[in-house]
This record gives sequence, C-alpha cells and structure tokens, in this order.
Amino acid sequence: MINLARQQIEALMDYDQAARLIEDAYRATSLGKVNLPPVGHIVFPDHDGDCHIKYGHVEGDPVFVIKVATGFYGNAANGLPSGNGISLVLCAQTGAVTAVLHDEMCMTDFRTAIGGAIATRLLCRTGAERITVVGTGVQARRQIEAHARLMPDRQPEFQVWGRSAERAALVVDELSDLGLSVVVTEDLEEACRSSDIVVTTTASTTPIIQHDWILPGTHITAVGADAPGKQELDTRLVAKADRLIVDLRSQCRDHGEVATAVRAGVVDADQLVELGDVLDRRKPGRTEDDQITIADLTGIAAQDIAMAQMVVAAFEDGLGIMPEDVLKS
Amino acid sequence: MINLARQQIEALMDYDQAARLIEDAYRATSLGKVNLPPVGHIVFPDHDGDCHIKYGHVEGDPVFVIKVATGFYGNAANGLPSGNGISLVLCAQTGAVTAVLHDEMCMTDFRTAIGGAIATRLLCRTGAERITVVGTGVQARRQIEAHARLMPDRQPEFQVWGRSAERAALVVDELSDLGLSVVVTEDLEEACRSSDIVVTTTASTTPIIQHDWILPGTHITAVGADAPGKQELDTRLVAKADRLIVDLRSQCRDHGEVATAVRAGVVDADQLVELGDVLDRRKPGRTEDDQITIADLTGIAAQDIAMAQMVVAAFEDGLGIMPEDVLKS
Repeated sequence: MINLARQQIEALMDYDQAARLIEDAYRATSLGKVNLPPVGHIVFPDHDGDCHIKYGHVEGDPVFVIKVATGFYGNAANGLPSGNGISLVLCAQTGAVTAVLHDEMCMTDFRTAIGGAIATRLLCRTGAERITVVGTGVQARRQIEAHARLMPDRQPEFQVWGRSAERAALVVDELSDLGLSVVVTEDLEEACRSSDIVVTTTASTTPIIQHDWILPGTHITAVGADAPGKQELDTRLVAKADRLIVDLRSQCRDHGEVATAVRAGVVDADQLVELGDVLDRRKPGRTEDDQITIADLTGIAAQDIAMAQMVVAAFEDGLGIMPEDVLKS
Repeated sequence: MINLARQQIEALMDYDQAARLIEDAYRATSLGKVNLPPVGHIVFPDHDGDCHIKYGHVEGDPVFVIKVATGFYGNAANGLPSGNGISLVLCAQTGAVTAVLHDEMCMTDFRTAIGGAIATRLLCRTGAERITVVGTGVQARRQIEAHARLMPDRQPEFQVWGRSAERAALVVDELSDLGLSVVVTEDLEEACRSSDIVVTTTASTTPIIQHDWILPGTHITAVGADAPGKQELDTRLVAKADRLIVDLRSQCRDHGEVATAVRAGVVDADQLVELGDVLDRRKPGRTEDDQITIADLTGIAAQDIAMAQMVVAAFEDGLGIMPEDVLKS
C-alpha cells in the first residue's frame, strides 16, 4: 500500500512523463477504450460546496482510479484553499487498494495544466510564442509552468491578466524563480490582439474574451469552464472559430464553452472534434496558419488515471522520499 | 488527518454504539434527511469483479462519507478475500479529507450485520430465540455475533446451514470463543420449521428457502440479495409474508428479495415499509405474534456514514491505538 502526501506527490511530478501518459489517455478515450461511468456529484448548498467523484478504467490497465475532488468556495474567506481532494488507485484484477494519494487537488491542477499545454502545442500555429493567460489563480500559474515546460523548443512570452492587477503581479512574482518571461497586462483586449495563444483559466460565468479581440491565426485553450453555467468566451467567438477541439464530446455538450454555443444553435455538435482523434491524426487539427482554433477542455477521468499512474510509477522507481512526519501531519 | 488500518478499525468496533448510530441513520433516511446520490458502479468483466461507490450526507452532519467497496469473485481461487474497500470521511464545511479508513470491507460487513440484528430485534415475536443462519461466509459469522450482542436479554440458539457442512462446522469452530450456542444443521427445511428467526446471508441467485418451510410467527432477515438478480427466498414466501420491511424503498424496487416479487406482480410496491419508519413508529412492524415478517436489507450509504462516524469518534476518544508498523504493512 502506497500512501503519499501532497508534498511527496509534488516532488514526484514529471511534466514530460505526465504529458506522455495524458496524451495516451486522450487517445484511448477517443478510441472508446476507457470505461468512464457517469461522474458522481454531491452538493452542500449551505457551504457553497460540492464534491465530484471521477473514476474509470483504461482497457487492459492493471489498475483503476477513483478521484475525489471538492470545491468549497467559502473557504477563501477563512484563508483556506477552495479545492481539495484525494485519489485512490485500485488493482483491476483483485479490487485491492494499492495507493492512496493525498494530493489535496494538486494532481487535478497538474493534469488540467498539462492537458492545456498538450492542446496548445498541438493546435497553435508555427512560431506562436506570445501567450496571454487570463486569470490569477493556481491554474494560471500551472498553465504557465506547463506551457513553458512542454514547449521547450519555443521561447514563450507570457502576459497575465486578472480583474485584480495586484493578484496578477503576485503570479509574476511567484513564478520569478523559473526564469520565464512573464509580465502583467492591464489591457486584456490589446493583449489578446497581440497574442498568438490565449489560455483562459477563470471560473467566470459571463464571457470575458470578446469575439473581435481574437485575430486570425490565434489559438485559444479554455480550461476554466469545467461545469454547466461557466463561460469565458463570447459565444460569437466560439461560432467564428475554424476548429473546435474538445476533450470528450459527450461531456462538452453540457459542460464548457462549446455547450453554450451548441445550445444557442450557432455551433453544430458535429463540428466538435476530440483531442485524442487529432493526436492520433484520425481528424485534422489546425490546417492553416490563419485559422482560429479553440480547445475547450472540461477535464476527464482518463487524465486523472494517467496522473495517478505517473505518480505511483515514479514513487515505485524510487524517485520519491517518504518522510513519516509528513504523513502524520 | 486520521489514517486507520483494518486491525485498528476492528479494535475500535462497538456494536451498541454502532447500532445506535445505524438506527439513527435508518430514521434519517426514512425522513428524507439523507442526501444519497445514485450509487457509482464500474465493472471488470475480465476478472469477474466490480466496484461500488456509495456516498452521501446526513442533513446537519459535520462530515460526509464516500465508501468504496470492491468484489472480485475470482480472488478466492488465489486465496484472497473477494471483498475489499476503503472509506473516506470528508468535512462537509470545507471539503477537506479528515479520515481514511482502510477497512478492507470489514466496516461493510459490520454494518450489514448490525442492520440485520436491528431489523430482527425490532420485528421478531416475543420470546423468539431459535435462529437459523443460512450461509457460511463472513456475513454468517457477523450476523451471529451481531444478533448475540444486540439481543442481550435473550439467549439465542443458532443453527448454521450451508451447502457445505464442512464450512458450516468451520463457522461454529471460529465462534467457539464467544460462549454462544451455535450448532451445524444439515436439514435446512427442518431448521426453518423449528426456528423463530431465519437470517439469510448467501449470494444465491436461486431461492433457497421455500414458502412452506416458514411457519406463522417466523421473522426472516434477508441480507444476501444486495444486487439485481440475487434471490434467497421463494417468491411465494415473500408474497405470503404479512409485513415486508425494507431499508430503502427506492433501492428495494430493483435490488433484493422483494424486487423479484414486485416484478412478478405478487407484491405491490406500496406494501413495502421502511425500517426507519418502523423504528420511529410512524408505521407498524409486527402487530401479531403469528405474523410472518420479512426484512429485506440491501445496504444503504447511510449505514456506511454511521459506521465511519462511529469508528472516527471512537478513535478520537482515544479508544484506538495507532501502531505505525500496522500502517506501513
């Protein structure tokens, strides 16, 4: 039985290996090789909280994974993170629990960021380096890190925008050790117009990015709208995109950016292409430099399975340490 | 964060306290005070296995519970138990994980047995002491223990029947330390005819107990049929019962003994009475000594919540020990 605390999981994190496994997870999903039962959900209206249980099994894998993620949005007022969680790894041959990963949401943050960077590097145009990141939360930091690490052949220049310029400055400060080019922008429209890539990470329920701010050739990776009712992109922007890529078509019909556009009747559900199909070249991604491409990612259990497997494999390879005092905390 | 291994959980087990909490759980369920989302389920046909995720929250409780239980029925051939599992306790105000209970299915076994004994003591007739237990698995042992502990004012005499008399003798042997009256019976019909109480615990898919074996005044607690397709009682027996008590009406319409009888049209779903309503005296249980009563229990998440809370409270009261070497195993 492997029992890992958050600090250990963060120490075991390997972006490249996780990206390989998450790409495989997208491919397996699009090939119908992942058994993904409906997501479990329970709400706590008195505390503005909810809990999602995502679980599944990739055909042939020796293990399956159950991921519990909570969001309690009143926590911030008490100085606590809103997100929390734990992942369980179980043997798919005996049902025994083989690992308990007390990740406190960090694995979800990593896999979401890596999914975003995988989509961006697959879909952005040649030479794209100017990236606007919208939002100032943990996911904004993680997306910058993942994009920098997973596009090593480029020299990305990041601009960060948030409703609070102060919080945007904090993101820049916190990433200063990584030697990246990250600055704050206060003019989102101008930032979008001058960017090759826009990554949106907010929990907004009203559109932030307007359709006329996005010029031909831009790629957008939208990861914020992961639940019904959330929206970061103007519906007209979704409608005018040349290519709409999603992680899971069945899920994106009622979650995410494209759901709103499909409901409004300006996008046909048949236009949606799965990331796994593009990775496998069964379907085209960007075909021209002047296209607008949007990757709308709502997060799927196959990513969680991949992340858990990466962490467990790295631990078993002896890459992790296991201080007992961490587990007792 | 509390992290308990199976041995610790077994050491913390308090039948009386668990029974009090589980009775409250049945009451709260029947009053509609428990949020019980649909049970999660994933199957592993290649290994004759499945996994259930039961979770829920009792209105006003400071915590909620997610219970993962697996059954891999090929394990026995390799000398492994078929059942396994883990329970998570989370704060209903912040979403933080407060306890991980590595119970390996033992909490499910306890709560099922306690639920059975609660139903029996509530519904059996005055002076009932002769109990036939059908089955020779873990649940047969647990039911005998729970019935003995939770009916301290009686002197129950147990007869155990199984398809293998050898395995039945093993149950008697294993319980010999408890100072109970437990013997093997090889004649199930005669045992049923001479018993006041029959407790069925098998995973049978064809009826074992025939309708004419059960005399007026008998109470039956059936816990084996916890999934669609399982059946221990002759449908005519269910039809002729005077009172049909279930743990959760919505669940018993497609799980358990009564489901078969309802589908066959010999029992009306309106006849089903919930255990919590009988405990609260909102609805009658047994009203005459010569009635046949059946409690058909399929197991509900509210019991799992109660068990987890009992274990955590007992641990916090300092009743448990926490040897580090147990956790490392």
